[in-house]
Amino acid sequence: MIQRLAIVGLGLLGGSVAKAARARALAKEIVAVGRRREVLAPALDSGAVDHATTDLAEGLRAADFILLATPVATMEALLPTVWKFAEADAIVTDVGSTKGHLVRAMERLAREKPLAFVGGHPMAGSEQSGFGAAREDLFQGMTVILTPTEATQEWITKRVTDFWERLGGRVATMPPDAHDRVVAAVSHLPHLVACALVATVAGLDGSPLAYAARGFKDTTRIAASDARLWREIFLSNREALSETLGAFRRALDEMERLFASARADLLEAELDRIRRIRADLQ
Amino acid sequence: MIQRLAIVGLGLLGGSVAKAARARALAKEIVAVGRRREVLAPALDSGAVDHATTDLAEGLRAADFILLATPVATMEALLPTVWKFAEADAIVTDVGSTKGHLVRAMERLAREKPLAFVGGHPMAGSEQSGFGAAREDLFQGMTVILTPTEATQEWITKRVTDFWERLGGRVATMPPDAHDRVVAAVSHLPHLVACALVATVAGLDGSPLAYAARGFKDTTRIAASDARLWREIFLSNREALSETLGAFRRALDEMERLFASARADLLEAELDRIRRIRADLQ
Repeated sequence: MIQRLAIVGLGLLGGSVAKAARARALAKEIVAVGRRREVLAPALDSGAVDHATTDLAEGLRAADFILLATPVATMEALLPTVWKFAEADAIVTDVGSTKGHLVRAMERLAREKPLAFVGGHPMAGSEQSGFGAAREDLFQGMTVILTPTEATQEWITKRVTDFWERLGGRVATMPPDAHDRVVAAVSHLPHLVACALVATVAGLDGSPLAYAARGFKDTTRIAASDARLWREIFLSNREALSETLGAFRRALDEMERLFASARADLLEAELDRIRRIRADLQ
Repeated sequence: MIQRLAIVGLGLLGGSVAKAARARALAKEIVAVGRRREVLAPALDSGAVDHATTDLAEGLRAADFILLATPVATMEALLPTVWKFAEADAIVTDVGSTKGHLVRAMERLAREKPLAFVGGHPMAGSEQSGFGAAREDLFQGMTVILTPTEATQEWITKRVTDFWERLGGRVATMPPDAHDRVVAAVSHLPHLVACALVATVAGLDGSPLAYAARGFKDTTRIAASDARLWREIFLSNREALSETLGAFRRALDEMERLFASARADLLEAELDRIRRIRADLQ
């Protein structure tokens, strides 16, 4: 059992961890660290956390398990302070949606002060954000990727795996850069594409957006997500994203070649191949 | 009241019209025309239609309202036969998802035999298909676009508008080519993009598809649609689709320029502009 769980950042993910950990009695005490008191107040009021503070040093005191749950760019900026004030025997992990830069920054800090840490990413995003959208069942059945490196001791990965599994998650592990390529493909590229679709259709003559039906709405739902959060995700993973975008452009060219050449048989075969792949994802 | 409603093609749309028209007592008799008896049998058994036949000439006999609800390419091939056997006072309309080619073909036929017709498109698609997926409430609140031309007499548009409104639809009218540009933007482009996303991610190393979460699934849901149907849609609207795809490529380039140049402020402003447009679509 965790004696004192410190959650830094109480948005959708941090808030959901607080609620889930409380509901499952995963920690004796839960402390939330946030930038603004008005964000922390509802968490205190709801009983999801026992203490709340805007002072990072205070929040980390005596914590044996530290979860960093701010947006990615903020997280990188906070790391030196986290490393300075974390107890020497604390386990540190995070929910950042890109891992390469972040884990490398943690490794640099660990050379000075060897804390037990492993990068993590619960793939339970939503177009919603903030503590108001947090749910104790957010991680139920969701994949959580942990990103140990050669330097990560096995017991650390095991402890953090156990943490997420007890919150309902299904844990997979892979190296940080492999994680970043995976999320570039299944998360960041679809997001970019959804945004480009909205931008395209909104810019056309004849107000076609007024005729958007379910297909368009589903395909672009994630474009309604928080702009600040996604700015940081795109910027923190731009190399993997550019590479994946290149592959996507080639796929678009291939689709266009098939319909423009009016090769009905080849076009149908390709659409059917895609249909089967997508249907298997249910 | 319609005396005899003939529905040619009993898939998702034709089947849903049958069920909705029956539920709302819109026609005294409903006749279904299909290619295969095993598709027609469940419609007869369910009471949604009174007669079913694989013989188009027989199905159109004495019908005063004819709805063509086959896939687009089949429809164009059927038109000469429809024109030959339709009663002289019948109203003809359709549910084809592209309109330019089809309406021009109808206009050519009408020069020989002046039937009352207007093109139509209920924007109530689904990744499901077939009579089994048909629902009497499919058109509730859905937009139906009618595409009268300068040659269309007003009473015809009014009669067909009335038909769809009684099935729950909200009718808009525009010229056939304007319709095709609208659906290229809000329907065919998202479909092509969803397919290209699946093809891209399925083709990458490291099996990223295994990590697809809700965002990817929503964005690509329509890629699980019937391949034959979409082959025909893409082919029948390839000019408007190519044009829209060009605009989409420019939007992708612009998004990439914003994240690759790491201009965080401009990127966030653009993501937020897009977020607001999308959020307004709810």
